[in-house]
Amino acid sequence: MEVKAKFENDLIIRAAKGEYVERVPVWVMRQAGRILPEYRAVRASVSGFKELVKTPELAAEVTLQPVRRLGVDAAIIFSDILVIPEALGLNYEMVEKKGPFFPKTIDSEQGLSLLKDINPTEDLGYVTEAIQIVKKDLNGTVPLIGFAGAPFTLLCYMIEGSGSKTFSKARKLLYQKPQLAHAILDKITNASILYLNAQIDAGADLIQVFDSWAGILNYPLYKEFSQPYIEKICEGVNGRVPVTVFAKGAYFAFDLFKSSCCNVVGLDWSMSVENARNVLANKTLQGNLDPTALYGDKQMIKELTVQMLEKFGKQNYIANLGHGVYPDTDPDKVKFFIDTVKEYSSKMQ
Amino acid sequence: MEVKAKFENDLIIRAAKGEYVERVPVWVMRQAGRILPEYRAVRASVSGFKELVKTPELAAEVTLQPVRRLGVDAAIIFSDILVIPEALGLNYEMVEKKGPFFPKTIDSEQGLSLLKDINPTEDLGYVTEAIQIVKKDLNGTVPLIGFAGAPFTLLCYMIEGSGSKTFSKARKLLYQKPQLAHAILDKITNASILYLNAQIDAGADLIQVFDSWAGILNYPLYKEFSQPYIEKICEGVNGRVPVTVFAKGAYFAFDLFKSSCCNVVGLDWSMSVENARNVLANKTLQGNLDPTALYGDKQMIKELTVQMLEKFGKQNYIANLGHGVYPDTDPDKVKFFIDTVKEYSSKMQ
Repeated sequence: MEVKAKFENDLIIRAAKGEYVERVPVWVMRQAGRILPEYRAVRASVSGFKELVKTPELAAEVTLQPVRRLGVDAAIIFSDILVIPEALGLNYEMVEKKGPFFPKTIDSEQGLSLLKDINPTEDLGYVTEAIQIVKKDLNGTVPLIGFAGAPFTLLCYMIEGSGSKTFSKARKLLYQKPQLAHAILDKITNASILYLNAQIDAGADLIQVFDSWAGILNYPLYKEFSQPYIEKICEGVNGRVPVTVFAKGAYFAFDLFKSSCCNVVGLDWSMSVENARNVLANKTLQGNLDPTALYGDKQMIKELTVQMLEKFGKQNYIANLGHGVYPDTDPDKVKFFIDTVKEYSSKMQ
Repeated sequence: MEVKAKFENDLIIRAAKGEYVERVPVWVMRQAGRILPEYRAVRASVSGFKELVKTPELAAEVTLQPVRRLGVDAAIIFSDILVIPEALGLNYEMVEKKGPFFPKTIDSEQGLSLLKDINPTEDLGYVTEAIQIVKKDLNGTVPLIGFAGAPFTLLCYMIEGSGSKTFSKARKLLYQKPQLAHAILDKITNASILYLNAQIDAGADLIQVFDSWAGILNYPLYKEFSQPYIEKICEGVNGRVPVTVFAKGAYFAFDLFKSSCCNVVGLDWSMSVENARNVLANKTLQGNLDPTALYGDKQMIKELTVQMLEKFGKQNYIANLGHGVYPDTDPDKVKFFIDTVKEYSSKMQ
């Protein structure tokens, strides 16, 4: 009996593992979301963002939309990094045009006792259910990416209670109560490991860890308060699927990821590809077109995409933007970016 | 007749020029402002932030407060970078706890015609008057720093109309209408040169250019849309006083400042001192303690300040934070930081 290949298109998995690819795989951070009219239609049918996240059928539908329309080489489950703080006991609201808001935050030793142990099946079953629906619908065409926020980034929200330019309250904690910070980070990390393994059990084929606020730290702080917890997560995933780390703004931390057990390192649009290739010679890289480049005309998009491909090279590379696609981007331009990656990289040596 | 020395304490000017100093000069970005109770008292006596900026006697008073209380080696005129967009014709409001808001923004070729030529005496006389009052009161004790926003940072506000995490609207312009972006940047630059020279005429002894949003660009964009305009400003100041450039987040742009006519390059708290010293061997450096380090106890502040001094070395260096001091910082801790710099660096070789 012939063994059926796991995927029709497994380019992204091969690239993540450092295996040979015929062309560069491509997907787009925040591909499932506000750029697509079909997403906005689904979003309009529910009371709010969180209802969408918590309704597996709808989360699955918006996960699949960009696969159908854009022809990306992977789906990424539609969800939010803040489901972990919520599962730990800190509910959040998603305020329209403002972002997340936590009525209750942690700011003392006592606050730590607010955090409960999570049970992924009970607390986050809506995510794993959505993953199962997506996997069934994808039916082996392309892989599905699961994800979580990096513990430090989640800590920022849990301390600050909302977005912030500087997250100075969260950073204050690192200097004033480092033990408490480590205790919270431990809790988040343990929960994230359970959560990501549940995602993998449900069918996630790759994992990405988003350290969205990495850039507000510096090298010594990142080395103490962020990278070790991401590393524990990588270890907790235990090689079951490839792991990508995207630490936005942490240009200073490349050397910390050199000996990490992650497979892929994501670059934001300001990071130097040359420097990353030098320091992270043993890793696959992902990124990093400036998302605002997609506001340019097609000639400009093509030129910048080709430049990007030539800089990264064809192997050990997953094409993407250097940040989530901005909501008012024309989906046709996003598709043009994706098509350009596919076409041009097929002809690269 | 003996010529009287221009300043009792000219450490910061000598350091900026790369001359020998007996100890490291120190000041703190945003030293004039919300950390001081005497500032909050003055602020409470007026209707709003802008009244304070526009009343020379009060702006002068809050400029002098940190010199008295903290013993810094320079005053910096209390003002706002947004006075230039306003002088160009775009009024702004400072919304409590939210930041600046421009009811009118530029988003088309037509918008450019909104911008008028400035007359520093008429449009910005309140700043130069404040400078004159400060200079009289300082009476030669320490130098006074004047400042302006970098053209790109001002462009961000003039396009976006308020603060933003990504300034994606402003970045969109760079890709969609680069000519328009350059035309606006030219206008801002010309106005800034007039403005800074008026500040110098009034008595400013050094100039700092704040490129607060530099970090949202990448190398090619920074090279095209920001650094050349900062360079024009340096050239426009024409060596009358030393110029410092603080391009927050533009770690990727050090080599662009290598051949700049600026004297000092400021580092934010995430930037590598070693790397900056290597690339910018011919410049004085300024920075870069993490402002949240001042939330730590005195032992921690001392340790981190000493580490910073040892990394930068005694010469060609101006001690500072790596960002403006945060509003809820204890002024005694700020003073402790300043005293530590003075004491420790006096004993350094």
